Amino acid sequence: MGPYEHEIPIRVRYCETDAMGFLHHANFLCLFEMGRTELFRAQGGDYRKMEEGGHFFVVVEMNVKYRVPARFDDLLSLRTRVVRVTPAKLEHEYKLTRDGVTIAEAQSVLACVDREGRVRRISDVIPELTEMRPRHPIERPA
Amino acid sequence: MGPYEHEIPIRVRYCETDAMGFLHHANFLCLFEMGRTELFRAQGGDYRKMEEGGHFFVVVEMNVKYRVPARFDDLLSLRTRVVRVTPAKLEHEYKLTRDGVTIAEAQSVLACVDREGRVRRISDVIPELTEMRPRHPIERPA
Amino acid sequence: MGPYEHEIPIRVRYCETDAMGFLHHANFLCLFEMGRTELFRAQGGDYRKMEEGGHFFVVVEMNVKYRVPARFDDLLSLRTRVVRVTPAKLEHEYKLTRDGVTIAEAQSVLACVDREGRVRRISDVIPELTEMRPRHPIERPA
Amino acid sequence: MGPYEHEIPIRVRYCETDAMGFLHHANFLCLFEMGRTELFRAQGGDYRKMEEGGHFFVVVEMNVKYRVPARFDDLLSLRTRVVRVTPAKLEHEYKLTRDGVTIAEAQSVLACVDREGRVRRISDVIPELTEMRPRHPIERPA
Repeated sequence: MGPYEHEIPIRVRYCETDAMGFLHHANFLCLFEMGRTELFRAQGGDYRKMEEGGHFFVVVEMNVKYRVPARFDDLLSLRTRVVRVTPAKLEHEYKLTRDGVTIAEAQSVLACVDREGRVRRISDVIPELTEMRPRHPIERPA
Repeated sequence: MGPYEHEIPIRVRYCETDAMGFLHHANFLCLFEMGRTELFRAQGGDYRKMEEGGHFFVVVEMNVKYRVPARFDDLLSLRTRVVRVTPAKLEHEYKLTRDGVTIAEAQSVLACVDREGRVRRISDVIPELTEMRPRHPIERPA
Repeated sequence: MGPYEHEIPIRVRYCETDAMGFLHHANFLCLFEMGRTELFRAQGGDYRKMEEGGHFFVVVEMNVKYRVPARFDDLLSLRTRVVRVTPAKLEHEYKLTRDGVTIAEAQSVLACVDREGRVRRISDVIPELTEMRPRHPIERPA
Repeated sequence: MGPYEHEIPIRVRYCETDAMGFLHHANFLCLFEMGRTELFRAQGGDYRKMEEGGHFFVVVEMNVKYRVPARFDDLLSLRTRVVRVTPAKLEHEYKLTRDGVTIAEAQSVLACVDREGRVRRISDVIPELTEMRPRHPIERPA
């Protein structure tokens, strides 16, 4: 099993900005999704193959705190961590920064379902994950 | 068979704007897609049911001329017309206006494929469409 | 001052779906933004004019619980309510439903800033809002 | 002056897919925009600084031919070239490929405007560009 956390660089695209000149707040969720994908890849996983095999991770909860705006062409860094694994749910935390300044913090909960939308036990789909325990106790952003 | 053309009102969303304060040029394609969906509905069709039945219309060509910028909260009007139907392709034209001023004009070509991506004859999927002939000869935007 | 809550119909667009066939979870935030815009309009306000006047509402917090997936062409109903107004922040709640079934619930916090990004007192920008009090005590979704 | 063309890798994001499982056709325009930004950067330019200086490039025409669908997590390659520079317009061509297979080809026309939307001479904004001549005569995709 690979690492519990992973960091990726992200360049803000023009089409992701809004009329205020900021990275639009909805687009942060797309970045967090990239963070999950790349963390899973770094762990040796492959979301696409998992979906081809009939297992899907759906977001059931998302909580974001936006601290400082980001702008077009900003080079951001996104750190994604798995912080909890239960039989039915997978919890991630995210920290998006620019030159060490926190842009946003977030936390999400995912559930695993099959093609028919039935909830699946994560331990049946990714057995390795159920042995994961976060290295540090993590507090939800206050 | 219903009408060859259809007009819908569209309010520009904040998340569709960009840092210039304009409706971002990529989002026009989403509006044109809505125009096709609503035209097909006005004709008695149902894109969703068609997809559930295993037939998909994929965009194979899109040509857009952007005339005047649109902004957040602008109330636009989109006119969508079917202008040509061949055994394998379906051609639409679009005119997006605000208070009579042309914001953009576009033209698209769609092909019909099945779940495996194989091209299907449109006449097999929507027999009524193949009898359609545009009421007015239409020129591509110069 | 107009109503504290407002309901709008929303048709799921094709471009808003993802490879699971669902309304992508990031796009919910665009719908909530529409809800705020239309609630403000129903109250006699105009976000665009407010921005032209140099006042901007930025999202500082967003919490979403996704209950049931939505799909292309679903006709949803979004109810948006102002639930708290403090000198510096504006809190909304959202409930997105389809035929009475809850698709998602959410809660957001907005702050008001000027062109330079400085926090402004909401009472200076929209005096009427500061007199608002929610009609019902609202609990955050559990 | 830097190169006339530039190539960048692009990983298809989940949020960019649609219910067919394909990279949605509107999102290609966001990728092409990234291609222009990175080509300009490779030439020593900086779109963001240019905008801060009050000059904006707006898309006035976009023509795309979609050849083969792309899917989530596909690693694509985008080649962007400047193919024509006139006093008022800038023309680019794009080729998006996956493992050598052409996914899409496109061509766009941009105009330069100031904050008030008035057309500006490109030679006044980026003098170096007006001396550019494409290395190969380029045909528009047939």
